Amino acid sequence: MSSIFGDRIKMTIFGESHGPAIGLVIDGLPAGVELNLDTINLEMARRAPGRSELSTARKEKDTYIIESGMFSGKTTGMPLCALIPNEDQHSKDYSILKNVMRPGHADYSGWIKYKGFNDYRGGGTFSGRLTAPLVFMGAVAKQILAARDIFIGAQITSVGGVEGTDFNPLGETAEVLLGLAKKNLPVLCSAYADAMISAIMAAKKGKDSVGGTVECMAIGVPAGLGEPYFDSVESRLAHVLFSVPAVKGVEFGKGFGFSTMLGSQANDAMYMSENTVKTKTNNNGGILGGITNGMPLLFKVGIKPTPSIALTQNTVDVSKGCNTTLEINGRHDPCIVQRAVPVIEAVTTWTILDLLLAANRS
Amino acid sequence: MSSIFGDRIKMTIFGESHGPAIGLVIDGLPAGVELNLDTINLEMARRAPGRSELSTARKEKDTYIIESGMFSGKTTGMPLCALIPNEDQHSKDYSILKNVMRPGHADYSGWIKYKGFNDYRGGGTFSGRLTAPLVFMGAVAKQILAARDIFIGAQITSVGGVEGTDFNPLGETAEVLLGLAKKNLPVLCSAYADAMISAIMAAKKGKDSVGGTVECMAIGVPAGLGEPYFDSVESRLAHVLFSVPAVKGVEFGKGFGFSTMLGSQANDAMYMSENTVKTKTNNNGGILGGITNGMPLLFKVGIKPTPSIALTQNTVDVSKGCNTTLEINGRHDPCIVQRAVPVIEAVTTWTILDLLLAANRS
Amino acid sequence: MSSIFGDRIKMTIFGESHGPAIGLVIDGLPAGVELNLDTINLEMARRAPGRSELSTARKEKDTYIIESGMFSGKTTGMPLCALIPNEDQHSKDYSILKNVMRPGHADYSGWIKYKGFNDYRGGGTFSGRLTAPLVFMGAVAKQILAARDIFIGAQITSVGGVEGTDFNPLGETAEVLLGLAKKNLPVLCSAYADAMISAIMAAKKGKDSVGGTVECMAIGVPAGLGEPYFDSVESRLAHVLFSVPAVKGVEFGKGFGFSTMLGSQANDAMYMSENTVKTKTNNNGGILGGITNGMPLLFKVGIKPTPSIALTQNTVDVSKGCNTTLEINGRHDPCIVQRAVPVIEAVTTWTILDLLLAANRS
Amino acid sequence: MSSIFGDRIKMTIFGESHGPAIGLVIDGLPAGVELNLDTINLEMARRAPGRSELSTARKEKDTYIIESGMFSGKTTGMPLCALIPNEDQHSKDYSILKNVMRPGHADYSGWIKYKGFNDYRGGGTFSGRLTAPLVFMGAVAKQILAARDIFIGAQITSVGGVEGTDFNPLGETAEVLLGLAKKNLPVLCSAYADAMISAIMAAKKGKDSVGGTVECMAIGVPAGLGEPYFDSVESRLAHVLFSVPAVKGVEFGKGFGFSTMLGSQANDAMYMSENTVKTKTNNNGGILGGITNGMPLLFKVGIKPTPSIALTQNTVDVSKGCNTTLEINGRHDPCIVQRAVPVIEAVTTWTILDLLLAANRS
Repeated sequence: MSSIFGDRIKMTIFGESHGPAIGLVIDGLPAGVELNLDTINLEMARRAPGRSELSTARKEKDTYIIESGMFSGKTTGMPLCALIPNEDQHSKDYSILKNVMRPGHADYSGWIKYKGFNDYRGGGTFSGRLTAPLVFMGAVAKQILAARDIFIGAQITSVGGVEGTDFNPLGETAEVLLGLAKKNLPVLCSAYADAMISAIMAAKKGKDSVGGTVECMAIGVPAGLGEPYFDSVESRLAHVLFSVPAVKGVEFGKGFGFSTMLGSQANDAMYMSENTVKTKTNNNGGILGGITNGMPLLFKVGIKPTPSIALTQNTVDVSKGCNTTLEINGRHDPCIVQRAVPVIEAVTTWTILDLLLAANRS
Repeated sequence: MSSIFGDRIKMTIFGESHGPAIGLVIDGLPAGVELNLDTINLEMARRAPGRSELSTARKEKDTYIIESGMFSGKTTGMPLCALIPNEDQHSKDYSILKNVMRPGHADYSGWIKYKGFNDYRGGGTFSGRLTAPLVFMGAVAKQILAARDIFIGAQITSVGGVEGTDFNPLGETAEVLLGLAKKNLPVLCSAYADAMISAIMAAKKGKDSVGGTVECMAIGVPAGLGEPYFDSVESRLAHVLFSVPAVKGVEFGKGFGFSTMLGSQANDAMYMSENTVKTKTNNNGGILGGITNGMPLLFKVGIKPTPSIALTQNTVDVSKGCNTTLEINGRHDPCIVQRAVPVIEAVTTWTILDLLLAANRS
Repeated sequence: MSSIFGDRIKMTIFGESHGPAIGLVIDGLPAGVELNLDTINLEMARRAPGRSELSTARKEKDTYIIESGMFSGKTTGMPLCALIPNEDQHSKDYSILKNVMRPGHADYSGWIKYKGFNDYRGGGTFSGRLTAPLVFMGAVAKQILAARDIFIGAQITSVGGVEGTDFNPLGETAEVLLGLAKKNLPVLCSAYADAMISAIMAAKKGKDSVGGTVECMAIGVPAGLGEPYFDSVESRLAHVLFSVPAVKGVEFGKGFGFSTMLGSQANDAMYMSENTVKTKTNNNGGILGGITNGMPLLFKVGIKPTPSIALTQNTVDVSKGCNTTLEINGRHDPCIVQRAVPVIEAVTTWTILDLLLAANRS
Repeated sequence: MSSIFGDRIKMTIFGESHGPAIGLVIDGLPAGVELNLDTINLEMARRAPGRSELSTARKEKDTYIIESGMFSGKTTGMPLCALIPNEDQHSKDYSILKNVMRPGHADYSGWIKYKGFNDYRGGGTFSGRLTAPLVFMGAVAKQILAARDIFIGAQITSVGGVEGTDFNPLGETAEVLLGLAKKNLPVLCSAYADAMISAIMAAKKGKDSVGGTVECMAIGVPAGLGEPYFDSVESRLAHVLFSVPAVKGVEFGKGFGFSTMLGSQANDAMYMSENTVKTKTNNNGGILGGITNGMPLLFKVGIKPTPSIALTQNTVDVSKGCNTTLEINGRHDPCIVQRAVPVIEAVTTWTILDLLLAANRS
């Protein structure tokens, strides 16, 4: 189904960009987990709009109300519902878009699917706003995983054609991974940040937008998570990553780079290190046969440029069945890559927690 | 779960490389579909080993027995079980591999997960042999989709560093897509095939292996399939594609190429064509907001080199907890990219059929 | 999972009796359904407490806020979330029950399962209050089914030992089924209502409670819904019926009565009636082989007496690990059978709608 | 879906009564479980036909081939497929039944659903033969549960109107529960067996059939299994019990008997017994709020008379759309209650194992 996913930790998301509220229900949380709401607030703030000139001017504090599943500061083991009211809506911005389809958006495919009954204001359910519940889920999962010494972090490796540096595939420290969240732009080597920001601002000035690439790493993940075939770690992660709007590519370890390698280069040689099996390289991104091998989990995600641009575009008016042009003059992100970073961390964290809870078979 | 996937068409796969048989159960087929077994045989033969010098010398006819779900040549609407007996097994080839882990394979991650109880012969369930049931499923689904004028085809766009040409993203004909299956090496422009074959043979001679890239297209897919978020077409396709052994990257449309594009270049401009909405480019690979838009479905898959190589490799012996070296002297594929092509078509076909059956909501 | 169920119409419920709110998310509704909120309000009122001397004095209007999934008065096809705030809470009534387990309730089994972290106030998630979201779901489904001439109604056939009359198994009219909702006590033959009310009032006076039996019928259900084995109509209905608190028995058609019948009495003889196949009796309650046969759907549900009674009971204090006694002096229902009637109708309606949407396989 | 069920232990069943084979695939078994095949054979024999004058003369040894999931006598943790070939088929017995619908069977509902394409020979997939895979699953699960001191047994409490005695709701010994399987007719107090056999033989002589009631108990089940609402133990058990052909009623503990009890009689008073919480009665059958409370699990199942009888019956011919009569002269069971006993034990065992594996949430 569209809005429910997960195995041991099932999440249901709901809401439209300009409806009363968006939110989520989490089913399957262990009972007795003390949740630090400040940590959740910090994660929500990372994704929230209106925080810098790099993102949309729409201001949403993304405050939430926990409606169920918490009692005396701890999880009850029952479904946890968090409601995130919509606040700064400019619904009149969108009224003319009922019939004029925005290129690069879900307007036309959604109009066909929902026969014109879907809420077209701000993209409705297709809006990137629906990633706020994902971040909430991730912030809860991060707290559970941190207590087990599992840490997740993501960074921008390219934006608008400006490339940064990659993570060391053999592992980064928890400090490095967690430190990325505190940077203005989450880039491993800050030296590249200014050029990236310039690329974004140039696109903004040109009424255009840019895409980019995000790299994500998880350290401390035990060997043995996931299963062959349809519950492979790659399958499960790719499923939720491709549920994040604007994600169009996912590759694990060397990914598409494998296509030019020989098997003797691609295979990660193994060795014993203090009674633990390790690999000398990590081309496979910590996953073999769909199962984690104890090396850091590592993958990259390709993100397309924000479809909403102020330049004039050719499109159609479905009410009239004719061609027309469109200029989108709302409040839009010239780049969503930096806001996608906490979302990618969030769905990764959720997936690892889910696989961890499923791993106990006896 | 590991071995079951799908929504309206649920498939269960089972079997080990050196057990009595592998197979599948398909739940959810419409009743009354006349199945052409010759068509299924042809698809099975495309994937089967031992058919040319490019693949392993293991000979498996991949003949199957339909145990249920067919009556008088037609589907009954009940679960269809097909059993594929294992025939040409050289189990003694593998006995020394119980404790010595093959790099690049699932040996170590599986040994941890299954506590040493999994069938290590030929990779057991992790074997690429388990893709035969996937091809069977695809061959059934292809017949149902062909009757609705939906056609799927895949080709190799690169192997061992040798690149071919891409599909025209605005669409290829059914003849072109179906014709690929008849080629010695499924490459759109045959001019590139010889260089690719040379690269594979060079790797074979060097006791090594090569990886590559496969591109897949589906034409005739109606607009409106899939749903936002967790049932996005990208999520569903990536899930099954990453369940195919050796797949390490998936990108839709321009995929990672979006990261260097501007929004004005990336957005697919829309226009009316004979009362149908079309796009002038197809950078999004026929999917917007997770839902098909009526343009050809288009994506690429990155495949790593066969991990089984005859060169000496560094690895560990888990029974002794010490380092060791390994030479794999069985019958192996110097390249599995060409055998992956029908598998990628198969899981794509299955997914499209499943989304099609789920699309009717009223 | 605990809180999510359904196939084409998946419902997620959440909330605790004394938390901020309870609610539900419905995934899979067709787009463009005009929802009559008055109809939903009427159904909610049927279940709501504090409406007569037969039920608890807790007053809850069970008003709801639709947070998503509706736009311009119609469903969008996206997840519909309805929030039902908790209003009339007397939480101090419950504080002494943290460690003293109420017999007949989930207190002890829940305390074990959730390690003492579950919200014990008013039963927390185990509270019958969580049936309000079920009634909401049913009220939505009833509107969709009514447009297809499918009608559902339930009545009390026994309460506190006082028996009424059964439905005519060959069918009641829509008027009769819908008219039950308007009665003070939903009993087919009103003549039995007074004796039933007396039995309930006698139990109330005696600080005790009574149970009963509810019979439910659906007319207009087409033949061919459901599937053999795990999606049998009996399996699906029993699953949700046993999810309703206090339900301890479910039987279809003659149910346990079959155990004293001969096959020649039990089999429903078939005949043609105006080009339609009908049966002369309906002992099977409209279901054969797990699939509807076009006759009215008919089943009975056994409901236990309200566990909360004011009489002194023997129980344990889990904090001290010793025996103790308990008198429950809150606001409780002397009988919940009449409040269970709309809940049973609701889960039945939801299930029929779900099976109907799943029936289209081609 | 029709043929797949379970959470941690998912089972897929397939096959038709007169196809090549029936079988099952079990997904989710722990690795390293040593399976005693003799135990499985014994369970299969309990259900197999042709073993006494009480059941059909069709002879099926119900031997099976394990196609996958076992290696060196132990489970691998991978999907276990067992194939049960069909042997003693008299397909010509059934050819005239293509269009003449047998009353009490799924013939008509299945004909509608599958548009006439389902295998009508011997009921096809609707055949009770499909319960053989369920018994196989149960025989595997029993071995795993026995190692944890959890034992399941079932007995006939009534057949053809002849009543036996009930289990002691506070518990029977493992010896008593396991000993039932060795009896000619599984009845707690053998004194009642002769009268029951006479009732069955009288029905057989009269070309008729009888139904009955089965009671099932599980001891050693820990408190805390199951979850509120849709994963209540009652919901999960009822789901699979109603998937067993001919089951038309399920009640837990006092079940429908609750309807004439007062709350003060129905509530199970609690007390401490050697540091364990117990109840003085077990009216709730070991389940409160959908969760096990550590008392014996106890429920009853109502089974209808075998629909296949040799007496002349009124029915319809769907090819002609007219009334007709039918005499069923095959090999049929005058009573299936005794053969249902191992099936009911099997699905109960599977469900308990599944809930047990799901219970670990941290």
